[in-house]
Amino acid sequence: MNSQLTPGLNDIFAYIDEHAEMFLQRLIEYLRRPSISAYGEGIGEVADYIAGVMRQMGLAVRVVPTDGWPMVFGEYHARPAAPTVLLYGHYDVQPPDPLEEWVSPPFEPAIRDGRLYARGVGDNKGQHFAQLLALESLLACGGTLPCNVKVLLEGEEEVGSPHMPAFIGAHRDELQSDLVIVSDGPVHENGQSTISFGVRGVLNIELRAWGANRDLHSGHWGGIVPDPLWTLVHLLATMKNERGEITIDGFYENVEPLSELERQALARLPIDVDEVKRSLGLRRLDEPKERGYFERLAAWPTLTINGIHGGYGGPGSKTVLPHEAVAKCDIRLVEAQTAEEILAKVIAHVQRHAPEVSVISYGGMDPSKTPLDSPFTEPLRQAIIAAQGAEPLLVPAKGASLPNYVFTKTLGIPAFGVPYANADESNHAPNENMEVARFFMGIKTGVAMLSYLGALPNTGMGEEQKVSEDGK
Amino acid sequence: MNSQLTPGLNDIFAYIDEHAEMFLQRLIEYLRRPSISAYGEGIGEVADYIAGVMRQMGLAVRVVPTDGWPMVFGEYHARPAAPTVLLYGHYDVQPPDPLEEWVSPPFEPAIRDGRLYARGVGDNKGQHFAQLLALESLLACGGTLPCNVKVLLEGEEEVGSPHMPAFIGAHRDELQSDLVIVSDGPVHENGQSTISFGVRGVLNIELRAWGANRDLHSGHWGGIVPDPLWTLVHLLATMKNERGEITIDGFYENVEPLSELERQALARLPIDVDEVKRSLGLRRLDEPKERGYFERLAAWPTLTINGIHGGYGGPGSKTVLPHEAVAKCDIRLVEAQTAEEILAKVIAHVQRHAPEVSVISYGGMDPSKTPLDSPFTEPLRQAIIAAQGAEPLLVPAKGASLPNYVFTKTLGIPAFGVPYANADESNHAPNENMEVARFFMGIKTGVAMLSYLGALPNTGMGEEQKVSEDGK
Repeated sequence: MNSQLTPGLNDIFAYIDEHAEMFLQRLIEYLRRPSISAYGEGIGEVADYIAGVMRQMGLAVRVVPTDGWPMVFGEYHARPAAPTVLLYGHYDVQPPDPLEEWVSPPFEPAIRDGRLYARGVGDNKGQHFAQLLALESLLACGGTLPCNVKVLLEGEEEVGSPHMPAFIGAHRDELQSDLVIVSDGPVHENGQSTISFGVRGVLNIELRAWGANRDLHSGHWGGIVPDPLWTLVHLLATMKNERGEITIDGFYENVEPLSELERQALARLPIDVDEVKRSLGLRRLDEPKERGYFERLAAWPTLTINGIHGGYGGPGSKTVLPHEAVAKCDIRLVEAQTAEEILAKVIAHVQRHAPEVSVISYGGMDPSKTPLDSPFTEPLRQAIIAAQGAEPLLVPAKGASLPNYVFTKTLGIPAFGVPYANADESNHAPNENMEVARFFMGIKTGVAMLSYLGALPNTGMGEEQKVSEDGK
Repeated sequence: MNSQLTPGLNDIFAYIDEHAEMFLQRLIEYLRRPSISAYGEGIGEVADYIAGVMRQMGLAVRVVPTDGWPMVFGEYHARPAAPTVLLYGHYDVQPPDPLEEWVSPPFEPAIRDGRLYARGVGDNKGQHFAQLLALESLLACGGTLPCNVKVLLEGEEEVGSPHMPAFIGAHRDELQSDLVIVSDGPVHENGQSTISFGVRGVLNIELRAWGANRDLHSGHWGGIVPDPLWTLVHLLATMKNERGEITIDGFYENVEPLSELERQALARLPIDVDEVKRSLGLRRLDEPKERGYFERLAAWPTLTINGIHGGYGGPGSKTVLPHEAVAKCDIRLVEAQTAEEILAKVIAHVQRHAPEVSVISYGGMDPSKTPLDSPFTEPLRQAIIAAQGAEPLLVPAKGASLPNYVFTKTLGIPAFGVPYANADESNHAPNENMEVARFFMGIKTGVAMLSYLGALPNTGMGEEQKVSEDGK
């Protein structure tokens, strides 16, 4: 491995430049087709459409049913001795509301100031379509691929990937690969490319407390009847203290400390904390004060109260003693906590401190982390330099949660995030967009990643695998 | 003073029985006239109407403007040596919503099963009209009253009596009396008559906390950006502990302990705690466990969270880090706390524990208490026995709040609550009602109270006083 361009890469980049307009038009064709998983709108049609696109490129493609929307699974078998790369993406998009805030309609892609505006352009059609066009370009220029490739496109990512864990578990053998690359989300805030190695897990819970069987007058009943808002306040105060430490019994016992490599990588991530505070109108960062900015996201679990609602919320005052109160919380998890473990600890804690409060789980996902010294890190880094001309930032773990654990834990393979979208892509918001140059850069990056990975020593993976038609 | 009927009382009771139907029809006439202070509907007209009724009875009446709705003030000067009794009531009523839940329309009084149904019948027209008819009956039978009498009817009680304190302060001399009697609210739950000697004060506050200048994704920002719901939880947890003790610095320092007489009276109040718990669906009473039921209401201040609202409150989960959160609280005060003192202590406490949280005051009122061994207690007790044939319960203080401090503190006179309405009067609710028999009993009780008070030794009060027309 060296930092020289893999032989032939420049020819393929030239091919991509020559076909740029055609690639852009084909992306626009794809973006015109709504595939809104929240409403079930267009999903089945778009699954068939993108499966057809992949077949035309020369992949063996199956549209595999699940209990929800189907998985689109494509394969290209290059040579048994090459590594096998799994490319994951999702063909569903967020609902486009509020429609009135879009400058151009969400499913009528439009280019303004070098950006392509359309629902799903960044999240995630523009990104996985770039990966597919990388395969097409490699095949067009070389007649084969440098690696064995598996492509998995999900149709329910925007509704929480409810069928991914079961699907991955049921198709462990067919999906087995040497690594997975996920191109989703944005690059670093400052525009630098990133390779991310982890995501936090999450557990969503609700705490519900009751007082009397109806709202009461606080003058006639205050001091006699318990106030469920006080019950929640006192319970929550036992779960996290003012210094920012989570005090659920046993909460930190499975947290793995950062490696020295991870600490160094976090320290290299650029951040202007004063600018963050200014743009968000903050006087201070959250407790504990002494934690580094990215350390907060990568190394520490959180317990956020997403909402508390109970009693009167109108103007002025109302002397009511409410009968019910609800707190919704999410707990972000880090290696090697699990959602199941933490839910059990929350339940035991509540049982001990406020047994009358009920705990409802809205599910969760485990964290995922790939070691920074994975043998695939260096080829991916070299590939990004080759395609983009700049060093990527290495992000040990991002703060948000994605079901990457199905790759790292269920499949047991390293997972790498290599996003292509600009930081201000406005995913999940009106006027979602992607810089057109980043789309082309994504195609080239895909080409380079497969080329550098293909130049690695043999791995012994790559035997033909089949996903059965019925999804079992 | 003795427990024999004051000479002539039986004759007046007979007069009341003879005129019962006419009295009832006149109450119905009064109830037909809406006087909803919250909407300003009919208030001015009803002030004039009831002033006219009082004039016809022989009182000197003024309708005194305030910055809100007018006060109706009537006087009858009997003889200088007699005590002067101030009768307070209010001619405004609650809004009748929800209209569809009324069996008969709120302003078309209807009698069913011995109860008169109409908005305001219990709260408070039926009760102060009984007092007025007591004056009329005494005058009809004896040509004069046994006491000097002042009648003050307010038009803004249902909107929190915003102009009472200033009015009382400005008219201290004209309103000066030996005692005030307030007939409002219900008798004891078990149907026994009561004389109440106090009410708790109240202070209404709002605590408002901010995080970022907009809602954020808890995965991207959790651990970096402070959560205003946590800020409120931690602040509130410093204001009251799990054992039910209010921990605002200096909170209890002006609380006066109960007198021995008050302790004995509280111990005599009947209560079936198991039935209360059953009817409200409670597993336990509020902390602290060791407090007696009525001691909780009469002797202890409370800090009730009326509402907390912030962040997501819909179904399922949403991983939002909210930007704002609000808690509304009321603090019930006991002798000799004041709303002003406690607001200052809350502000100082918040300043010390969470200076970024803002404290908004929605006003309050001081507590009020009259000693159980007041020289007027015994004549009032005898009067109730004479009119109703049963011993009243003595209630040292009720849990709710009324601006009685304007009498006990601004005027410096003892205040007695002698309610006539049944416990299930449904005031502030649809199908407000009063047992017809209780209305007649109220008239007789009014007669008896004035008669027994008139038999007391001279007090030297009773000089002619005038309330000026312009309310200054």
